[in-house]
Amino acid sequence: MNDEEYMKLAIKLAAKGRCYASPNPMVGAVIVKNGQIIGRGYHQCCGQNHAEVNAIADAKGKVAGSTLYVTLEPCCHSGKTPPCTDLIIRHKIRRVVIAAADSNPLVSCRGIACLENAEIKVTRGVLEAESRSLNEVFFHFMETGLPFITVKYAQTLDGRIATATGKSQWISSPASLKYAHRLRAEHDAILVGIGTVLRDNPTLTVRLVRGRNPLRVIVDSNLATPADANVMRNLSETPTLIATTQKPSDPRYRKLSEAGARLMTVAPDREKHVDLKKLFQKLARENTSSVLIEGGAAVITSALGQGLVNRLVVVTAPKILGKGIEAVGDLNIRELTDAKILSVRVLSKKGPDVIMDARL
Amino acid sequence: MNDEEYMKLAIKLAAKGRCYASPNPMVGAVIVKNGQIIGRGYHQCCGQNHAEVNAIADAKGKVAGSTLYVTLEPCCHSGKTPPCTDLIIRHKIRRVVIAAADSNPLVSCRGIACLENAEIKVTRGVLEAESRSLNEVFFHFMETGLPFITVKYAQTLDGRIATATGKSQWISSPASLKYAHRLRAEHDAILVGIGTVLRDNPTLTVRLVRGRNPLRVIVDSNLATPADANVMRNLSETPTLIATTQKPSDPRYRKLSEAGARLMTVAPDREKHVDLKKLFQKLARENTSSVLIEGGAAVITSALGQGLVNRLVVVTAPKILGKGIEAVGDLNIRELTDAKILSVRVLSKKGPDVIMDARL
Repeated sequence: MNDEEYMKLAIKLAAKGRCYASPNPMVGAVIVKNGQIIGRGYHQCCGQNHAEVNAIADAKGKVAGSTLYVTLEPCCHSGKTPPCTDLIIRHKIRRVVIAAADSNPLVSCRGIACLENAEIKVTRGVLEAESRSLNEVFFHFMETGLPFITVKYAQTLDGRIATATGKSQWISSPASLKYAHRLRAEHDAILVGIGTVLRDNPTLTVRLVRGRNPLRVIVDSNLATPADANVMRNLSETPTLIATTQKPSDPRYRKLSEAGARLMTVAPDREKHVDLKKLFQKLARENTSSVLIEGGAAVITSALGQGLVNRLVVVTAPKILGKGIEAVGDLNIRELTDAKILSVRVLSKKGPDVIMDARL
Repeated sequence: MNDEEYMKLAIKLAAKGRCYASPNPMVGAVIVKNGQIIGRGYHQCCGQNHAEVNAIADAKGKVAGSTLYVTLEPCCHSGKTPPCTDLIIRHKIRRVVIAAADSNPLVSCRGIACLENAEIKVTRGVLEAESRSLNEVFFHFMETGLPFITVKYAQTLDGRIATATGKSQWISSPASLKYAHRLRAEHDAILVGIGTVLRDNPTLTVRLVRGRNPLRVIVDSNLATPADANVMRNLSETPTLIATTQKPSDPRYRKLSEAGARLMTVAPDREKHVDLKKLFQKLARENTSSVLIEGGAAVITSALGQGLVNRLVVVTAPKILGKGIEAVGDLNIRELTDAKILSVRVLSKKGPDVIMDARL
């Protein structure tokens, strides 16, 4: 096996951390000595051991003189765990092969420098694109200071997300709903507009698959969330954040706050609604690295219009409704050449439905 | 090899007749003797030899005592060619394996009876569903007296077929356009509404792939087709039929007729437009077994609303337009449970676009 093949294995291990590593990146590591894989590890959960630590602990026999394959530059700073570079140096690993440099300003290329100073041979850039793609959320978050934003909606073949009278439960199939819950579990936060809360009264939790519940975020400029809405239940287990333009002095603010929700005042945009970009910046500062927007049309249109969306997941049910409500409203696009262009990364079928997973 | 495996081969041969056999069915035949395939044939083109004739002509050595695998019941009447049952009997074929009985009232089960009367052993129903699926157009046409109707449109990810100002060229990619031309070549007729003629001035011919041009049909209740429109060119090679509610005495009727188009007066529906079902019945009587509707929204909505559509091909370009024109208008559906249900038979990517090929 060559460097790329060992790295492929490390990337596969890294992917096992999906849903739990966040907001940390998914990282995998493989230790090779005399052409044999002697240790494997990955970052299983935020706050726990890094991949390198797990791989070294997993190693059979001494790791001195071995090669370490790791999908992300090892850290050189003390966070929740001690620096991995120290451990690598102490264990006399001879060579370190890295897929991608870290974008975290505390690490970026310093880990590599640290290893090279200790006369460890470093090879970088092996399957870099694959590693960056796996951690697209982490890299985006680190490099822009904004969460990675995914918009997901279910539509009919003729592009309707609800009937003319606003009914949308359920356009998609049970198989697609399960997929939607998995998507929720992969995100740090899930966000909907107040219209969706009032119309569908969703719970916004992960129920159909195993996984942690994301933070629930309601965009509710005028504080119309009913205190007995489903998103106001089980708040101690699954917190709900209500983003509003209202001040803490507002009686509705106090009422929802007393009911257990967390409220956040965000400056209004020109239309006097919560400014989504400012909200996202605030969420990022609290280490929310990814947000899944599930609707409704107003929030989706606003996020798309402001260029804040990174990923679009469209579930298309093979049904025709005719007249109805569309997911995306006016974006001020009048020419085809001005259309927002995406690329479909994964095309799949879930039950009768078609899922297009695309990047902007 | 067993019966099913030989029949699979015959179905594969049959499919070679696509685009040219119509309005005849696609039929394939394989002759097997002493466990060896000694002859193969398929119906290549309407008016030419049937599959059985070609397979017998292709056979090496005597076919007496052999088994004939044929995807459709052999004909027992003289059409453009003599009855195949006579040929089979004359060649002393011992056994005939048939996938599907013919739906043509001139043949239906009489071919089988004819063979059995001659003491030929007949096995039927081997891969019947596959054979019927391959010839869905033919069976629908024979069993309903209506052409098989395909609706095809290209839309953006948010379900728009044109910008708010009506621009639709080109939403889809060159690879999808090529696919669209292949679809044209597979149909006996292509149909658009007058709105599409006036807005896009299409030629409606097969250019990007090899294949015959379908009959061009314009639904033009009030005879607004310009005499110099692209659909009025090359009429001797590729005829254009203008379906209208106007009478031959109308001066516009005469003008278009003199310009070389064929005009057809169709009774109006309640909205005083050409009654699509009546038009389709008239086309069927002239042996048009399949019609491809390429737009616009009014014709698509009307055909869907009347339950006349059999197949829907949606090309989705990974673009977002926001406000725009939708393919399907009001179908009087107010509840999700009343939505028209389809099943996606083929899901594929052509260049950046996603193609959903579904049946109603």
